[in-house]
Amino acid sequence: MVEHKHITLSTKNRGFHLITDEILSQLGELPNNGLLSIFIQHTSCGLTINENADPSVRVDFETSFNHLIKENESFYTHTMEGPDDMPAHIKSSLVGSSLTVPIINKQLGLGTWQGIYLCEFRDHATARRIITSIYS
Amino acid sequence: MVEHKHITLSTKNRGFHLITDEILSQLGELPNNGLLSIFIQHTSCGLTINENADPSVRVDFETSFNHLIKENESFYTHTMEGPDDMPAHIKSSLVGSSLTVPIINKQLGLGTWQGIYLCEFRDHATARRIITSIYS
Amino acid sequence: MVEHKHITLSTKNRGFHLITDEILSQLGELPNNGLLSIFIQHTSCGLTINENADPSVRVDFETSFNHLIKENESFYTHTMEGPDDMPAHIKSSLVGSSLTVPIINKQLGLGTWQGIYLCEFRDHATARRIITSIYS
Repeated sequence: MVEHKHITLSTKNRGFHLITDEILSQLGELPNNGLLSIFIQHTSCGLTINENADPSVRVDFETSFNHLIKENESFYTHTMEGPDDMPAHIKSSLVGSSLTVPIINKQLGLGTWQGIYLCEFRDHATARRIITSIYS
Repeated sequence: MVEHKHITLSTKNRGFHLITDEILSQLGELPNNGLLSIFIQHTSCGLTINENADPSVRVDFETSFNHLIKENESFYTHTMEGPDDMPAHIKSSLVGSSLTVPIINKQLGLGTWQGIYLCEFRDHATARRIITSIYS
Repeated sequence: MVEHKHITLSTKNRGFHLITDEILSQLGELPNNGLLSIFIQHTSCGLTINENADPSVRVDFETSFNHLIKENESFYTHTMEGPDDMPAHIKSSLVGSSLTVPIINKQLGLGTWQGIYLCEFRDHATARRIITSIYS
């Protein structure tokens, strides 16, 4: 059985944000055993799992992704939506738009240092919509 | 219950291609509720979800990926299969080989601007095989 | 029904390693039909699917990822855990921390040339823990 839930995340600044608690608080009690799939319905942000403790990691993610996929590259042709738009699309595909996490004993099977990130790649994003799907 | 289907995509040129309709037309009616997993059985192409409207986005994806992972790098040792081969393997792992998408009310839970891309990284690819798996 | 299994991979050197057989040998008989999800509980390594035949591909993956995400970038602020740590986090999010593979006729639905890689991004990693989840 698959149970979906639509969740709207609070609006975030450009950058990498830990959202494990924001998601869990909206899911309520998890089943004893299953899998959680999280899908984000946008193409200029993404989801990933990474270090949940030191905020400097998330700062370096933002700097590194900006270094990797630069704005204002002379070869961009899709420039009408602003200099942050095309890089945001590419970054989005590099991290991906969905995650799958085991559910064990009513808890996410994340490692000690793992947290769920929203990767917000736009300068002025609105609230982002995700669909969670629990199969148990 | 998991239901698999083998699909062969039509041969595509190198580049990023919107294949949402090509996949949906082969899937037939979707279940009322579930999840769709799409898995591509190759290592020099990939699958991603991104912008479904403006073709210039897909052009810039191709240019940007070529800029990010260049051909003929002096450090490549796997060069026997042509200059596009090793970059294709790396790009394939950057986007990934599978996608998971919610199925809600017999439709994919894609956002308004989301479409499924085949990322074809080889110069002269043959038809690509994917396995779709619907669990409902 | 989802069945989880905790697996500890043998300690690996930094680099890209084919682990298909190591995982399969620990899973035992697969169900006739289903999906396998593999989740790695760490933030400085990752999982991907790529070429299973020529070891030079894996060598070039290591070189290419080091070229793409360099150590000792002047803009890194998270530097306390060594020069390989922050790059490892970023590389981890580029490949991702989970895989989904179809199970068909008691076998993984991998293509002829596909194998499962552990991407070990740390210089001195310990044994890595994964959770496999089979839904059938």
